[in-house]
Amino acid sequence: MYTNEDLIKLRHSTEHVAQTAIRKIFPDIKNVVGPAIENGFFFDFATSEKITPELFPRIETEMQKIIDADLPITCKEISYEEAKQLFVDNPYKQEKIEEIKTSAEPFIVYEIGTAESEYYNVDLCAGPHLESTGQIKAFKLLSVAGAYYKGSEENEMLTRIYGTAFYSKEELDNYLRLLEEAKARDHRKLGAELDLFVFSELVGPGLPLFTPKGTVIKEELQKYVEKICRTYGFDKVITPHLAKIELYELSGHAKKFADELFHVTSIKGHEFVMKPVQCPHQTQIYASRPRSYRELPIRYMESEKQYRAEKPGEVSGLSRVYAITVEDGHSFCTVDQVRDEVKGMVNIIKEFYSVLGLWGNHWVSLSVRDYKHPEKYIGEPEDWNVCEKMLQEVSDEMGLDAIRKEGEAALYGPKLDFMFKDALGKEIQIPTVQLDFATPKRFELNYIDSSGEKQYPVMVHRAILGSYERFMALIIEHFAGAFPVWLAPVQVEIIPISETQMEYAQEVKKILLASDLRAEIDTKDATMQSKIRDAQLLKIPYMVIVGDKEKQNNTVSVRLRDGTQQNNVTLAEFVDRINNIYLTKSLGLW
Amino acid sequence: MYTNEDLIKLRHSTEHVAQTAIRKIFPDIKNVVGPAIENGFFFDFATSEKITPELFPRIETEMQKIIDADLPITCKEISYEEAKQLFVDNPYKQEKIEEIKTSAEPFIVYEIGTAESEYYNVDLCAGPHLESTGQIKAFKLLSVAGAYYKGSEENEMLTRIYGTAFYSKEELDNYLRLLEEAKARDHRKLGAELDLFVFSELVGPGLPLFTPKGTVIKEELQKYVEKICRTYGFDKVITPHLAKIELYELSGHAKKFADELFHVTSIKGHEFVMKPVQCPHQTQIYASRPRSYRELPIRYMESEKQYRAEKPGEVSGLSRVYAITVEDGHSFCTVDQVRDEVKGMVNIIKEFYSVLGLWGNHWVSLSVRDYKHPEKYIGEPEDWNVCEKMLQEVSDEMGLDAIRKEGEAALYGPKLDFMFKDALGKEIQIPTVQLDFATPKRFELNYIDSSGEKQYPVMVHRAILGSYERFMALIIEHFAGAFPVWLAPVQVEIIPISETQMEYAQEVKKILLASDLRAEIDTKDATMQSKIRDAQLLKIPYMVIVGDKEKQNNTVSVRLRDGTQQNNVTLAEFVDRINNIYLTKSLGLW
Repeated sequence: MYTNEDLIKLRHSTEHVAQTAIRKIFPDIKNVVGPAIENGFFFDFATSEKITPELFPRIETEMQKIIDADLPITCKEISYEEAKQLFVDNPYKQEKIEEIKTSAEPFIVYEIGTAESEYYNVDLCAGPHLESTGQIKAFKLLSVAGAYYKGSEENEMLTRIYGTAFYSKEELDNYLRLLEEAKARDHRKLGAELDLFVFSELVGPGLPLFTPKGTVIKEELQKYVEKICRTYGFDKVITPHLAKIELYELSGHAKKFADELFHVTSIKGHEFVMKPVQCPHQTQIYASRPRSYRELPIRYMESEKQYRAEKPGEVSGLSRVYAITVEDGHSFCTVDQVRDEVKGMVNIIKEFYSVLGLWGNHWVSLSVRDYKHPEKYIGEPEDWNVCEKMLQEVSDEMGLDAIRKEGEAALYGPKLDFMFKDALGKEIQIPTVQLDFATPKRFELNYIDSSGEKQYPVMVHRAILGSYERFMALIIEHFAGAFPVWLAPVQVEIIPISETQMEYAQEVKKILLASDLRAEIDTKDATMQSKIRDAQLLKIPYMVIVGDKEKQNNTVSVRLRDGTQQNNVTLAEFVDRINNIYLTKSLGLW
Repeated sequence: MYTNEDLIKLRHSTEHVAQTAIRKIFPDIKNVVGPAIENGFFFDFATSEKITPELFPRIETEMQKIIDADLPITCKEISYEEAKQLFVDNPYKQEKIEEIKTSAEPFIVYEIGTAESEYYNVDLCAGPHLESTGQIKAFKLLSVAGAYYKGSEENEMLTRIYGTAFYSKEELDNYLRLLEEAKARDHRKLGAELDLFVFSELVGPGLPLFTPKGTVIKEELQKYVEKICRTYGFDKVITPHLAKIELYELSGHAKKFADELFHVTSIKGHEFVMKPVQCPHQTQIYASRPRSYRELPIRYMESEKQYRAEKPGEVSGLSRVYAITVEDGHSFCTVDQVRDEVKGMVNIIKEFYSVLGLWGNHWVSLSVRDYKHPEKYIGEPEDWNVCEKMLQEVSDEMGLDAIRKEGEAALYGPKLDFMFKDALGKEIQIPTVQLDFATPKRFELNYIDSSGEKQYPVMVHRAILGSYERFMALIIEHFAGAFPVWLAPVQVEIIPISETQMEYAQEVKKILLASDLRAEIDTKDATMQSKIRDAQLLKIPYMVIVGDKEKQNNTVSVRLRDGTQQNNVTLAEFVDRINNIYLTKSLGLW
């Protein structure tokens, strides 16, 4: 195995090779930067040429020649004047040289080859690098894009080429396969193909509209998460999407989200903001009447929208939107009740992610303070000590094996964060249980304890699936659109072999609908084969094919999404079986 | 029985008597207007006195004297100059006199008594009036309020006294009882008492927060209306609460709701409006892909919020809010399918309002064009003719006995409007089925017909319960908070006689919750009697009292909200019985 440092060396060196190759083709390019990044590297340069992926094979051929030549990659320190002279034609490097001068760092350059060899390149760069180009065993250029100089929209646009490199052809191939797979699973692509959500020019970007099929998934997720939470004592509430800014000035969110706030006005003089978070609204229901210790814990959950004014260029698919439907919940409890509340919430997370097959392949972070910077947090150190200790105990008692992460706590208190891995190994970090002593004090929430004294409750925040939009993006990609039966927008596609079985098909549909299953008949004027292909493309779990024999015997022929076939299944058995799979939320199909 | 004209005469004359009485007490008042209104009259006047209800008995005593004196009410025409002179001290009347002069109408005054009698009053007024004050048999002053002159906030504030009058004491008493009852049922009062929704100073007015109990009612209504609609082929969708204003410029709503639009901006330059209606968003889902005639009808429903910037002074309770959660639905269909679509929608309305016990005591309006002003409508006259005829036929076929109301159509097409009466006889006008040929054309929606030609679908709009906020206000008042079992936020209050039955109470609760019933235990440190009183005040349908005998026999004693009692009911029977009442949405209790 290679260390991360090994990979950085490899990829950064490959970037120098790419730079050398491109310079061979277009001698006038002005190189700017070219770091190794996660899974590869990029190279930014200024050029008057239009670089397209069609050019990649030509660049890659040159790169391979440089690698085959096994040219040395050597490093030397030069003087300020030498540097100025060396990059006299490159204004970006001139700027960089002045920056290096100010920071009083040395001027390091790396050379590939020598000034006399066919391939030669020199760049102002601190490394690290391999010793020679021959050590690069496998590489690939991946894409080309525009990138603003220094990332600022004020500056000119440069050309950026992305690529990657590995120490073996096999690893590269694996990675490229994964990339292909990720592209095929991209929720924006599948969302359109499976007709789950759409965007409208007239409505605007960042504002997805859920079609009937996408709505089914959202509603199934919501029903399920609410059902689990209800068994743990959560009551649903509904709070408005607007509030006076005073609410968030008190909670601290007005400052925190100052740049992300949507402001709402009318010609009649109204002034509101759209809520950037749910918590403050929920405190107002708690605060609406006097509370007794007998009522605690009071647990609220809701699934309403909150809003963030993201940069218009950054909204994308369901992962980044302006309006975020957040499943949010809070428990208001006494200090003595916190432990049980946390345990209940962890159990909810466990139950929810187990059903999706994600529990087990996960790790938990016990996110505590940065002890070197206590000034970054609010609240009393004793409260923090008690809470961090308590979360550690919960982790021990429940076998969570939480890893202590210093500096990862929230502003208001420590938390447990749950990290899962999707089918492609991408980390999903959503569920969290977070303690908060501060918000109840800010909002002057209280309860009367058994001795008649006013006390502040503790507020425990919990997220299970986070926002429906982002969670749907994740599970679309995780399942590659082939959802488990309970989430499948259409569970059964009924395919009559010909028009003569249409009546029986209708009957089958009626029986399925009566069992609350989601079924539709393919009424298109097309062959059975093409209907099967269509249902397969839509990743519908069950195709029910009805011909004369089936009609006669009151049976169905079932073709599963995985290609297997079950013939002569009685209708009653089929309904029972898939209803059972639906109700138990099984991940299997038969 | 009296005609409406009789009542107007009576009430307007009573207003003159009130005016005379007040003038007797405060000779310097300047009378402004005093019309008869529905159920009574009001009298606006300018005065430097502070008028409070404490003064009403004194005014009423004077009024009674005027009635007992049976003074004649006489009318005469005077000249412009006489009018100017007669009301020389009253700037409001001076303004009115100039208005009458401009309109070239005659100057009519009505006198009570004569200038020489103890009580005398003259007012510029066109009547109608009774012949003498003795004809007034029963009257009452009701309230006092401020009212801007001519209804404009720019003008000075006048004093307004509301009152009523009837031809018999009995009718007056009935009306006053009804008023008391309406006050007791006021949803704002009951909403607070039953803890259904709250407002927060920090969130702002016009933005109700639904508590767990209020949320139960909203969700039960939503589940039920969606369930019915689903059986009629409606698919749920979810659309954002924001859009670019272009969407509404195209639909025409930007102009229609120009004064009610909330504008949304951010420091990053975003510009949106909050949706004032749902329809345009739903057209965008239809428009998101090519449609074939085979797919039609396409039916969408949703329950999302829309927004109207009401005048801050006019928001009130749940009846008038800024954010309105509307259950809205549309069918996109061919002309041939319109009839069946309308029928389906009428059936949905029938089913929904029958369950609430409101169907039967209703009437239907077939709202057609104002034929004298065709320019007020958009769309082709042939389309209008076809649709109006078709709605008439649906009414005939379904026995709706719709009453044709000219001029009540919507801008885009004719409609069926359903009018119900609540428990106090107040009219509820919510459900509607409306045809619309125009919107599909504006949005260039289309489908490919069986010959491969592009066609516009018809859009059929339907409302069932309208907005959840207003509907909840209505049913809170209709049921006076004593909701049918399926809507009751808490269905069963478990009352252990003493601490020793707490365990059994918990067991009972567990069994009820497992049957998806909503139950809670009264854990207060209080007597059984006071717990029963509390549950009664909260109008909880069932109080389950558990003592030692019940615990021993595995039974419960059930006290119904109506005061009747059922003893020795086995737990199993109780669960069965009320579960059945819940599931069938019965209005009964046992």
